[in-house]
Amino acid sequence: MATIDEITCPVPAPATSQIILAHGGGGRLMHRLIGQLILPAVGNPILSTLHDGAVVEVNGSRLAFTTDSYVVRPLKFPGGDIASLAVNGTVNDLAMCGARPLVLSVGLILEEGLPLDLLNELMQSLGRAAAEAGVLVATGDTKVVDRGKGDGIFINTAGIGIVEAKTPVVPSSVRPGDVVLLSGDIGRHGIAIMASREGLVFETTVESDSAPLAAPVLHLLREDIAVHCLRDLTRGGLGAALVEIARGAGVKVTVDEAAIPVRPEVQAACELLGLDPLYVANEGRFVAFVSPEDADRALGILRAHPVSSGAVVLGRVAEGEPEVVATGVLGTTRVIDLPSGEQLPRIC
Amino acid sequence: MATIDEITCPVPAPATSQIILAHGGGGRLMHRLIGQLILPAVGNPILSTLHDGAVVEVNGSRLAFTTDSYVVRPLKFPGGDIASLAVNGTVNDLAMCGARPLVLSVGLILEEGLPLDLLNELMQSLGRAAAEAGVLVATGDTKVVDRGKGDGIFINTAGIGIVEAKTPVVPSSVRPGDVVLLSGDIGRHGIAIMASREGLVFETTVESDSAPLAAPVLHLLREDIAVHCLRDLTRGGLGAALVEIARGAGVKVTVDEAAIPVRPEVQAACELLGLDPLYVANEGRFVAFVSPEDADRALGILRAHPVSSGAVVLGRVAEGEPEVVATGVLGTTRVIDLPSGEQLPRIC
Repeated sequence: MATIDEITCPVPAPATSQIILAHGGGGRLMHRLIGQLILPAVGNPILSTLHDGAVVEVNGSRLAFTTDSYVVRPLKFPGGDIASLAVNGTVNDLAMCGARPLVLSVGLILEEGLPLDLLNELMQSLGRAAAEAGVLVATGDTKVVDRGKGDGIFINTAGIGIVEAKTPVVPSSVRPGDVVLLSGDIGRHGIAIMASREGLVFETTVESDSAPLAAPVLHLLREDIAVHCLRDLTRGGLGAALVEIARGAGVKVTVDEAAIPVRPEVQAACELLGLDPLYVANEGRFVAFVSPEDADRALGILRAHPVSSGAVVLGRVAEGEPEVVATGVLGTTRVIDLPSGEQLPRIC
Repeated sequence: MATIDEITCPVPAPATSQIILAHGGGGRLMHRLIGQLILPAVGNPILSTLHDGAVVEVNGSRLAFTTDSYVVRPLKFPGGDIASLAVNGTVNDLAMCGARPLVLSVGLILEEGLPLDLLNELMQSLGRAAAEAGVLVATGDTKVVDRGKGDGIFINTAGIGIVEAKTPVVPSSVRPGDVVLLSGDIGRHGIAIMASREGLVFETTVESDSAPLAAPVLHLLREDIAVHCLRDLTRGGLGAALVEIARGAGVKVTVDEAAIPVRPEVQAACELLGLDPLYVANEGRFVAFVSPEDADRALGILRAHPVSSGAVVLGRVAEGEPEVVATGVLGTTRVIDLPSGEQLPRIC
């Protein structure tokens, strides 16, 4: 009799035997890919924290270190382009570690046929974004791939910052009672990309919120606000960020859905496209978990910076199941979960 | 009469209005692209040194910081794969700054359809290479692009190291009289890639020399060898590395061509393919410029490490025109120049 090992009749390959776009979406599939395949192969205690950036101790200095590759389409969109995004995104990941961004590396993967004029325009934009964010591009690399083996330009940036936060800014520092602040209206980056990719025209052009966030974060730290956790709301949006923190901290996060600022044109676009703004990507928005006694002062500091002038109190941390519960305008509640896959591919 | 600015008849676009493969080849075209387009846009004194890595001072520590994207085809080849290459290449760039490699970031750009089995195999290889090189993968990022917009997998790694060299390990530290050491035989990586890409079969399989080089470099520094400059012999090979250093240092480098170790099978493949081994890429070879009084000791140290056991004295530094002159077996001399473009595209 054949044992189970000897049965060799072909079975259909499972849907997950190959990479699919949703593996890059910041949702459950990506978490599974990282947790089941990448971490077992290359993991270590630092990588396994799965924060946006790592904090490493070098000669007594605490350094934040992070990387992101940018594959956004189209290369230029209202409010930004792939190059400014590549600077802001990495600067923001450093800021979310409670760090002052210092230097960036830039790795370009260019597709044969990319117009030099466009490359020049993008490099000018990258230089301006770095100057605005106060970081130096310290090192770089240029590779070229054959026509049809890339998509114009991909940009990787890695960044080093120096941690200014006195206590770890990580999910495990979050405490019941903490107040959750949101730095401004959500959903603009995702909708700007979607609209410009699909040629959708709204009455008001939605511009990406792409911006460097280090200034308000460093201001919070300088004023000794007890900042327990920070997270920028990129792939997966506000929803994924809150769920990741709730699970990482082992706490319940309650959110007042009516408090979430969404511009009318973004709300309209989301309704038209069947999207939940909670999961739409942002590139210049973050949440801050702070001690309740510091919440008012923190809100004031955030509102003093143009990039976070629309900051609001979003919710509270409580003891309980690690989950995120949103209370709607009519008092109804819903549990916010991770998005399963990809809402908008190649958003950053 | 029309002025020159008013003449608008269409002229053929110059060959360089678009990116071509040779822009990625480590030769003259790449140097021009970086010097004329990228540096003016994002340049600063650190980036403008154009070393393989930058040295930045953070809280009194001298850190080396470097990045490279890997786009090699095929993904697996005799002696290595894209993942081990992505670790070794970046570790080596740190070592060439006279630094001890500490942490790496890994940015993956995956093409839809990449088999998960292959990804798993590559991540295992990446983990092994990191362990062998003694570095931690501290942070990472995963992006997915549509089928036909990538090429299986591209890997970016950035790395941080701590500079152990007491004096700057840069071309400008090179002095007339310095001895040039070469760490072993050249040309294997390029020929291994070429052969496996083109399906060439030689009597002996040529294996890539891809390997981490930090151990012999740190040994030189620990023994207080006066190391003035180091360079690994990647894109552009030994030839490009020597020319870049001669120009950066403003010195003449004389090389004994008969001293350059080239394995017979590599020599045969080069002759067959019409390639000069001097310009063929390596991924585990470097040159060291050291004080003449330390040369013998340095050679002994290099030879004590498996990865540089074939080290030889390659040449000398003299005053004179910044150029590289090779003396052949019959006493003839030739000037070694930068390769103009791409000898083998997508070699790393």
